[in-house]
Amino acid sequence: MNKSIPAFLSKFFTDEEITTLKEKGVICSDQFKDLAFLRLSSEYKTFHRGAIFYEKGLAPGYPRIMRILHLENGINRYFKNKFYVEEKMDGYNVRVALINGVPLCFTRGGFVCPFTTDRIQDLIDINFFNEYPERIICGEVVGPGSPYNTEVIPYVKEDVAFFAFDIVDENSNHLPAEERYRILEQYNIQQVRKWGPFSSSDAGKIKEIIIELDKEGREGIVIKPVSSGKSVKYVTLSSCLRDLQATAHLITELPAGFFMQRILRAVFFCHEFGIPFSSDYLMNSAKTLYLIPEQTLKGISEGENIKETFDIRVNNRKTIDDLMHHLNRSDIRTQLISVEKTGKYHRARFHRIYIKGTKELRHRLTGYGFFD
Amino acid sequence: MNKSIPAFLSKFFTDEEITTLKEKGVICSDQFKDLAFLRLSSEYKTFHRGAIFYEKGLAPGYPRIMRILHLENGINRYFKNKFYVEEKMDGYNVRVALINGVPLCFTRGGFVCPFTTDRIQDLIDINFFNEYPERIICGEVVGPGSPYNTEVIPYVKEDVAFFAFDIVDENSNHLPAEERYRILEQYNIQQVRKWGPFSSSDAGKIKEIIIELDKEGREGIVIKPVSSGKSVKYVTLSSCLRDLQATAHLITELPAGFFMQRILRAVFFCHEFGIPFSSDYLMNSAKTLYLIPEQTLKGISEGENIKETFDIRVNNRKTIDDLMHHLNRSDIRTQLISVEKTGKYHRARFHRIYIKGTKELRHRLTGYGFFD
Repeated sequence: MNKSIPAFLSKFFTDEEITTLKEKGVICSDQFKDLAFLRLSSEYKTFHRGAIFYEKGLAPGYPRIMRILHLENGINRYFKNKFYVEEKMDGYNVRVALINGVPLCFTRGGFVCPFTTDRIQDLIDINFFNEYPERIICGEVVGPGSPYNTEVIPYVKEDVAFFAFDIVDENSNHLPAEERYRILEQYNIQQVRKWGPFSSSDAGKIKEIIIELDKEGREGIVIKPVSSGKSVKYVTLSSCLRDLQATAHLITELPAGFFMQRILRAVFFCHEFGIPFSSDYLMNSAKTLYLIPEQTLKGISEGENIKETFDIRVNNRKTIDDLMHHLNRSDIRTQLISVEKTGKYHRARFHRIYIKGTKELRHRLTGYGFFD
Repeated sequence: MNKSIPAFLSKFFTDEEITTLKEKGVICSDQFKDLAFLRLSSEYKTFHRGAIFYEKGLAPGYPRIMRILHLENGINRYFKNKFYVEEKMDGYNVRVALINGVPLCFTRGGFVCPFTTDRIQDLIDINFFNEYPERIICGEVVGPGSPYNTEVIPYVKEDVAFFAFDIVDENSNHLPAEERYRILEQYNIQQVRKWGPFSSSDAGKIKEIIIELDKEGREGIVIKPVSSGKSVKYVTLSSCLRDLQATAHLITELPAGFFMQRILRAVFFCHEFGIPFSSDYLMNSAKTLYLIPEQTLKGISEGENIKETFDIRVNNRKTIDDLMHHLNRSDIRTQLISVEKTGKYHRARFHRIYIKGTKELRHRLTGYGFFD
């Protein structure tokens, strides 16, 4: 066997597959403290993107969830059997797994998140892993103290909170919803809100839930079968506008489809719910799409960069450096502004600077032409 | 030599190049009536996309023109020497070339446009070709009788008009601006409006021209060096909104970048000209981006397709069939509604039906999920 191929990978792939996947950069070697592991950077066979392979096992990637734009027709199409409705929250997805006795938090892409790993013991009762050492808790980390998200979350006032929405068992299966609800409750691990069980004839009730979530400034729902099968997601009208508001300064950084998709989702929402677009919604959208980029451009003309500011709390000072390292990518840079000790935490403020988006605006502003 | 390679191509490419370019579909065989010709479907070496090769010669492709988003800085960057400003019109680009004694009109992509070829003698004085049989007139066809454009043109009330903006000589060189102005005037061939010559210190004057064009509902300008060099284009604020209004029903047909680019152009315009976005502009944009797609979606829910309606006039009945054939592509279909004789013309009304955009809306509406 190829010396560079760890023996544990052979449980999952042939040697030939491993060589090819490594060459293509699909299998990536990674390390967090003492743990050497391999990360799948895109889906392959039955493994999802972000799957983690290590000496003693596997942490499966979190599956992508289909989006529907027509709630009632989507429910009728995909749910012949009973289902639960769970709140879809607006943060970032992590999988918490006990590896070599330590709970590690993996991002969707299969990186260890230094921030979440540092804070996980503050967020959930990790005694869960005494009883279920081989299970993985999947959840959303939400709040103004997030190192990834800038969208304003009206229901988490400070720092971050963890909301569990899945448990993966030792055989890589997702636990049935009711079993998950019970176990998480037993360990007092905070869960996303849930409603149900419902059947497809209850579409009217689901629409009422959506209207309620929309009013409360919540993102949307994930509909999950009681037993097994596909889940689907659906978002509220207000979340489409909040997404635009949180990202319009990134007009030259994010793909154009990001913005147009939000408009299309809103159009489908109003069509299905028979709600005319209010003047406020229209005007706020336009102000977001034109005036925020205009402010960004003004900043660029004054020598600024496109940036976002974060304010986080961690237990260990070193986590801040690990996080900066984790966040630095070729086209996004991190700039630490301040670190101070407040109570038990180290509080860090930092910027993320968007190189690509900044460069495009600066080029255009200085008169460079381009072909479109 | 390979039997399938026409001898005249060997004037431009080696046999090996020809074989490769044909295999890749870069050189495509085409035919219009008696004329067999070859079309370049993407740029290769010094040849632009849309170049035409035929037995007796070459009709070069029309070069792409760089867009600038900051007028003054763009002028300073690209124009060290004198330049003219010409109006950029909102229609479609054709090249008129005399081939085997017949004036043929080629589209940007290098297809013969049956409509323009049918009508060219009504639009320009083709005696031009008696004196200059090897020259090519490049211009924009504009008006409500266009088979390609649906944007409302306030200054052409009916049918179509031709506005020349370039002459290519027998050596594939673009004539110097002043020589072109003179010759076109001599043949009374309608030209795009022009201002100048200017130097880069006149940026203030160019900005005044833009403000004037903006008020008049015109698209923008192309800045062309007096002698030789790069041209650049720049568009008005109002044209960005008109583009959105003309295409918002194609939200699922056109790339998202099409729409976001118009927003970005408007943002740059207001920044440079120090014009705050008016409430009207913002509200009209939002209505366009949300309410037009909402109407489109309503139509789809009632069983309609996304379509546009055209109303054109031609001299020969057969042109209509040729045009329908020309317009039919894999994802856009044409539907002839009516043909009637009015005066000297055959008047045809037809729809273009957008299959891709329709299918996406219909799928989403019937509840199909998707990954994004």
